[in-house]
Amino acid sequence: MAVYFPEVDKVKFEGRTSTNPLAFRYYDPEQVVGGKTMEEHLRFSMAYWHTLVGDGTDMFGTGSAVRPWDNLSDPMDIAKAKAYAAFEFMEKMQIPYFCFHDVDIAPEGDSLKEFFNNLDEIVAIFKELMAQTGIKLLWGTSNLFSHPRFMHGASTSPNADVFAYSAARVKKAMELTKELGGENYVFWGGREGYETLLNTNMGLELDNLARFLRMSKEYAKEIDFNGQFLIEPKPKEPTKHQYDFDVATVLGFLNSYGLEKDFKINIEANHATLAGHTFQHELRLARVNGILGSVDANQGDELLGWDTDQFPTNIYTTALAMYEILLNGGLTPGGLNFDAKVRRGSHEAIDLFYAHIAGMDAFAQGLVIAQRMIDSGELEKFVDERYKSYTTGIGQKIVNNEVGLKELSEYAMENDQITNSSGRQEYLEAVLNRYLLES
Amino acid sequence: MAVYFPEVDKVKFEGRTSTNPLAFRYYDPEQVVGGKTMEEHLRFSMAYWHTLVGDGTDMFGTGSAVRPWDNLSDPMDIAKAKAYAAFEFMEKMQIPYFCFHDVDIAPEGDSLKEFFNNLDEIVAIFKELMAQTGIKLLWGTSNLFSHPRFMHGASTSPNADVFAYSAARVKKAMELTKELGGENYVFWGGREGYETLLNTNMGLELDNLARFLRMSKEYAKEIDFNGQFLIEPKPKEPTKHQYDFDVATVLGFLNSYGLEKDFKINIEANHATLAGHTFQHELRLARVNGILGSVDANQGDELLGWDTDQFPTNIYTTALAMYEILLNGGLTPGGLNFDAKVRRGSHEAIDLFYAHIAGMDAFAQGLVIAQRMIDSGELEKFVDERYKSYTTGIGQKIVNNEVGLKELSEYAMENDQITNSSGRQEYLEAVLNRYLLES
Amino acid sequence: MAVYFPEVDKVKFEGRTSTNPLAFRYYDPEQVVGGKTMEEHLRFSMAYWHTLVGDGTDMFGTGSAVRPWDNLSDPMDIAKAKAYAAFEFMEKMQIPYFCFHDVDIAPEGDSLKEFFNNLDEIVAIFKELMAQTGIKLLWGTSNLFSHPRFMHGASTSPNADVFAYSAARVKKAMELTKELGGENYVFWGGREGYETLLNTNMGLELDNLARFLRMSKEYAKEIDFNGQFLIEPKPKEPTKHQYDFDVATVLGFLNSYGLEKDFKINIEANHATLAGHTFQHELRLARVNGILGSVDANQGDELLGWDTDQFPTNIYTTALAMYEILLNGGLTPGGLNFDAKVRRGSHEAIDLFYAHIAGMDAFAQGLVIAQRMIDSGELEKFVDERYKSYTTGIGQKIVNNEVGLKELSEYAMENDQITNSSGRQEYLEAVLNRYLLES
Amino acid sequence: MAVYFPEVDKVKFEGRTSTNPLAFRYYDPEQVVGGKTMEEHLRFSMAYWHTLVGDGTDMFGTGSAVRPWDNLSDPMDIAKAKAYAAFEFMEKMQIPYFCFHDVDIAPEGDSLKEFFNNLDEIVAIFKELMAQTGIKLLWGTSNLFSHPRFMHGASTSPNADVFAYSAARVKKAMELTKELGGENYVFWGGREGYETLLNTNMGLELDNLARFLRMSKEYAKEIDFNGQFLIEPKPKEPTKHQYDFDVATVLGFLNSYGLEKDFKINIEANHATLAGHTFQHELRLARVNGILGSVDANQGDELLGWDTDQFPTNIYTTALAMYEILLNGGLTPGGLNFDAKVRRGSHEAIDLFYAHIAGMDAFAQGLVIAQRMIDSGELEKFVDERYKSYTTGIGQKIVNNEVGLKELSEYAMENDQITNSSGRQEYLEAVLNRYLLES
Repeated sequence: MAVYFPEVDKVKFEGRTSTNPLAFRYYDPEQVVGGKTMEEHLRFSMAYWHTLVGDGTDMFGTGSAVRPWDNLSDPMDIAKAKAYAAFEFMEKMQIPYFCFHDVDIAPEGDSLKEFFNNLDEIVAIFKELMAQTGIKLLWGTSNLFSHPRFMHGASTSPNADVFAYSAARVKKAMELTKELGGENYVFWGGREGYETLLNTNMGLELDNLARFLRMSKEYAKEIDFNGQFLIEPKPKEPTKHQYDFDVATVLGFLNSYGLEKDFKINIEANHATLAGHTFQHELRLARVNGILGSVDANQGDELLGWDTDQFPTNIYTTALAMYEILLNGGLTPGGLNFDAKVRRGSHEAIDLFYAHIAGMDAFAQGLVIAQRMIDSGELEKFVDERYKSYTTGIGQKIVNNEVGLKELSEYAMENDQITNSSGRQEYLEAVLNRYLLES
Repeated sequence: MAVYFPEVDKVKFEGRTSTNPLAFRYYDPEQVVGGKTMEEHLRFSMAYWHTLVGDGTDMFGTGSAVRPWDNLSDPMDIAKAKAYAAFEFMEKMQIPYFCFHDVDIAPEGDSLKEFFNNLDEIVAIFKELMAQTGIKLLWGTSNLFSHPRFMHGASTSPNADVFAYSAARVKKAMELTKELGGENYVFWGGREGYETLLNTNMGLELDNLARFLRMSKEYAKEIDFNGQFLIEPKPKEPTKHQYDFDVATVLGFLNSYGLEKDFKINIEANHATLAGHTFQHELRLARVNGILGSVDANQGDELLGWDTDQFPTNIYTTALAMYEILLNGGLTPGGLNFDAKVRRGSHEAIDLFYAHIAGMDAFAQGLVIAQRMIDSGELEKFVDERYKSYTTGIGQKIVNNEVGLKELSEYAMENDQITNSSGRQEYLEAVLNRYLLES
Repeated sequence: MAVYFPEVDKVKFEGRTSTNPLAFRYYDPEQVVGGKTMEEHLRFSMAYWHTLVGDGTDMFGTGSAVRPWDNLSDPMDIAKAKAYAAFEFMEKMQIPYFCFHDVDIAPEGDSLKEFFNNLDEIVAIFKELMAQTGIKLLWGTSNLFSHPRFMHGASTSPNADVFAYSAARVKKAMELTKELGGENYVFWGGREGYETLLNTNMGLELDNLARFLRMSKEYAKEIDFNGQFLIEPKPKEPTKHQYDFDVATVLGFLNSYGLEKDFKINIEANHATLAGHTFQHELRLARVNGILGSVDANQGDELLGWDTDQFPTNIYTTALAMYEILLNGGLTPGGLNFDAKVRRGSHEAIDLFYAHIAGMDAFAQGLVIAQRMIDSGELEKFVDERYKSYTTGIGQKIVNNEVGLKELSEYAMENDQITNSSGRQEYLEAVLNRYLLES
Repeated sequence: MAVYFPEVDKVKFEGRTSTNPLAFRYYDPEQVVGGKTMEEHLRFSMAYWHTLVGDGTDMFGTGSAVRPWDNLSDPMDIAKAKAYAAFEFMEKMQIPYFCFHDVDIAPEGDSLKEFFNNLDEIVAIFKELMAQTGIKLLWGTSNLFSHPRFMHGASTSPNADVFAYSAARVKKAMELTKELGGENYVFWGGREGYETLLNTNMGLELDNLARFLRMSKEYAKEIDFNGQFLIEPKPKEPTKHQYDFDVATVLGFLNSYGLEKDFKINIEANHATLAGHTFQHELRLARVNGILGSVDANQGDELLGWDTDQFPTNIYTTALAMYEILLNGGLTPGGLNFDAKVRRGSHEAIDLFYAHIAGMDAFAQGLVIAQRMIDSGELEKFVDERYKSYTTGIGQKIVNNEVGLKELSEYAMENDQITNSSGRQEYLEAVLNRYLLES
């Protein structure tokens, strides 16, 4: 069997003092943190599209990536090479999961039929490789945004044929996900939105988006696919305005259409910041609403206005993300999928290893920091103390819904000289630094 | 009776060729557009806080405004002078409505009791002036964000005493709004959010926000106040993150807490752009969800990251806003409230007139343009044509919920060579220019 | 000879009431405005890359454009078809100029030699078509950013071979520009910047950028090419940070390296807004510094953080741009180049016509508005009056450099009770609306 | 003598494991790092305005701060109390420098004369306290933006009387700075810009700004004040557009007016990000141009569009800032001035201590990390290797200015098959994490 990355052996944990660029310094899959191994906590996943398909193209430049299959030309040969390379990569990187869009893994050909045949052929290879390696499918999905037929949307296209076509694609992708034992199915609606309101029937489009999701869920039941269904919010890009803007928007949409029990959220860090939120905000909001399902682990550049999909290396971000995830009781059946791409100038195959190591180490260390924060209870205690007025007296009555404006007004007339406690933001930021630097 | 603006007579309509800076060129209250007068359509309102209270202070400078009551020093004398000046201003400007926060109209004094007494005294003057002039109250509200007691929020404060205090204030403000025949009551939660998640119990805060709104609605029923209840979204500023981020967020929040029948939305243009949306987007989204209640008419500077609250003068914005409002069947009982302030360098009292004229003319002309767009049906026809595939065949079945993934997939296997029509964005923008320039 | 756009006849001026989508409503090339024809004022140019090469690809989707040469497959056949189509398009659109990058017009082949031969072949066709049609070349340039060899920059690449290669390309592009009688030569350094400071020698890169520009200018002298040299600023995208950030940055750079006499600026509207400036700001700043050379006419979406390169249809923007351009005494030898692309959903060839009509009409009407503003002198008079204190007394002494801190301090001790006049921003915005709506 | 902060003793270094909130964990003034003590490296300065004057006011709320001088009412009594409190604070915090605007330290009174007298009285107290404590003045400045007289600018005001008045203020502030042995004098032009181009003569304003700076420098020579002159860039806020937009803009401006030898730059972190740059970018650009003078140490929130002036607690930012500062050979005679304010909800006096501790520890740890990065040479070596092609062959000829387009073109024709090395961004980010977490 061909070896695609002969220059790299299995990447191993060597500890924090190692300067070996092809070793983990923080990620030790077997290290137990808070009662579970790092592997169980983190559930890392490789994103097939970036790692196997991405070639460094950007809006002003063509692909720069140098890849071991560059010598091939037949689309199916390339697809197969990528499949084998993917599993070699994941094994060497100790990544236990992967995610894919249908178009990532097989050529579309000239018809749906041909595409589905191509998919079946590759999926058979996947099954074999999964059995051999123990690597699993975190989630599958269908790419309903890249082909020009989706130029005006998929389920929100003004063209009913596109809606039907999209349905066929989701049906197939869901079947394949089931076949591969996928634990989740994701909907990211990159073209489900509008370019200009001048040509848009927003009401119909929103209704159709809901219809599409409902049909999908119904079909899952029909075929007994029990994976978790996830919606991935993004505010914009490629579309001027996307309907799944952020967690709050999706939550409202699901509620409006009675879909709130059928879908959870897949939160991407860079999508959060594009929507004007921190990553932690989106995780927290999903968590307190009970809809935090999975995570696309990357980071953006807040000074740039587009989705840079960088590998997550900021320890503050990974620590605070893991803090929310731990408080959520983990992500299972979701996971941490590296929806991240090497920079266009990091064009060598080995950069894929460096980049995943950087991201995995950053999340491993983030996990350790977060667990220490939770173990000490320092932050939680501060917060509990801050809100303690709601545990007795008038506060308790408020929380128990025992008072209305009238009773509260009477209370306030007698208690109108109010003293507040400091929120201590600067102090808490120093506390966070203590955990960050001393873990 | 004192005259506060002796340099200005009643501002009258003089037609588009007039260069008189103290005349309307487009706003003619009695001009009939689409079956209603401009006055009936536009329902202009003066914002008491900016026009009477605003003094040009910004984060780097103290007040610059020169006002006719600058010679007074007793707080109640000032409050009374402002009341008379307000009605003189509105009469001269032909503005039929006003809006206020409790603290705008009377000094807070040292206790709730003193404050409520002060409010009663001014409200009595208002009643008299309203009777004399026919000017009406569009909406009232309580300012629950400026005083330091609200530093950590009002209904979302970690301090239960602040929740109670806020309840007392809303109770009083609602009673006064009822007394003055106010047609709406507004909630803008400028501090209902968080500065840092490190010290925040988001779940409790969201629950308390919902409790507060529910209590308020219940009290309204109790006192038989039938005004429309409105929530005004804003994503941030002063608070790092505000819970009423945008229309979609509020919609989701209302649905989550079963409040969706009790509240509509008051949309501010500048808040829309701070949230990353166009003003038209927020209006459209509210409209298709049946919750468009009222409008805070201003404009922001999209290159600046804070709420500039400028007077609305951009004709594109006013035309597209009026387009949504007309399709909404108007705003009644809401209106167009000028939540806009003269620039700090426009510090003379006469600038208040110039600024309102600029805004009123811009909306009047926007109305005319929008009505012409609707009358011609040109845009609507384009949109209907664009979505016509949903009126027959497979599209009709989709809309009628008669098909699922399986049926659609069968259809798609036979219909996978899809042709789309152009969205014609550039053409439509030229069409919009035609209406704009030729109205 | 093949006709590429048989569905369109020559687009003609039909006047503002026309609803013919393939006619000009405002652009009448022969209409005289302020002593010159519209054609002389506006000097419209077609951007070869967007109009002939652009296919609707974006970061999440492949090309959507349907073009008359889609049936061809040989790269040189396509290049020739595009050349003929370009001139047919410009003739039908009455566009008198065009601009191109070397790679737009001919395939790169496998070597510099092959590329240069291909270029020569197409340029020969251009010369013939230019002679036949009278269409002229506004500017030429070399694309030093799309090919992966430029992944780390061109003249700022850490690889000296890339610097040399780039020099060869500019040499050839300049020679071709001269051969075609091009009136300008443009430098846009899309990769001249950095992705991360961690790997960047900023000092050497800035020096090399200056060296490259100096060499280019020297070669121009050597071959007696007298076209105007232009630098086009952009703050970011594709690169994280670009050295030619904005007009002020380029101005400083040119001054630092003694290049200020050799280069003017080509200002793109969308690049201005990405840098946090209005288009008018960049034009004004260049104008008052005497370095306004040419314009890339498009518009961005200020709520989106990337270069959308939309066709310019906002009349405020075109009016204020033309105001600066008229006060600059026009742009000659520069022009208004439509560096704008049809939206991905506007994928039909006819959208190219609609889009250019929209842009040309918007600039024509902007010109008329701007000329009326200048003719009336209303704004200029306001500004002169505002600054009149510098024409007498202490102000005059300041401007004449006759006083220092000491003299001014003495004056101020006696004159410390200062009164300012209002800046009248709202009034002036209403005045602008008057010109906009009544032109 | 009154004690203003009795609840706090001298804040001491207790080492990284300390959880005492009133101790340093990383800042040990006497610890030697790279041959100098931390105190010598960091040159911390307290910002008088935030720490003594700031009261938590924001655009939507009045002051929340509780301060030990709240019981006083006479403006001069308050000013004196603040002076004593300031020195007590700095001594307890071990902060060796302070900075102030004239208006921070004494009431303006009703005339320039009264103001100057008030200033003299407080400055006499400062001198005494400085002698007692050894605390020094990093820089002084005059606030030419808060009073309404500066509504249209100071040296760029359209009102010549304001220019004169501003000159008097700078003259006095410079004299006081000299008297107190201040090591620098700063110009921050918060109103030196425009609100709307419609009323602005940009050319005259830029000329006047240059005149003002030149006069100031001339006066410094006249009175033999040898402090370093600094310009502090900011792109916007309070003004729509400020002329000192960023480092590159100021550099260009200084060059244009021949002032480049007389001024260096004071870089504020939050101003950098408002301009779309990283803090490190601005430091680097100033460093390679030899104009890095001093630093305003704070941090912004990149998701908020205004100047939040938060205390700097992000270790990435402080480490990369110290990296640039160390490579600059330090900042002397500049320093690290905490232009940072406690959050409005951190309203207790003790928060001032917590906040400065957070910032000082973050910079101390940043220094240690940066020094280790420099000591190892790992990054520098990477960069040198990356650019090594400029040290031999064609690269060397380029750098030595020995070749032009022609020679380079000849070289490129023979060397057009180019191979680039990866930029290794992800790898380098992991390296940075290694230094950050293991220092």
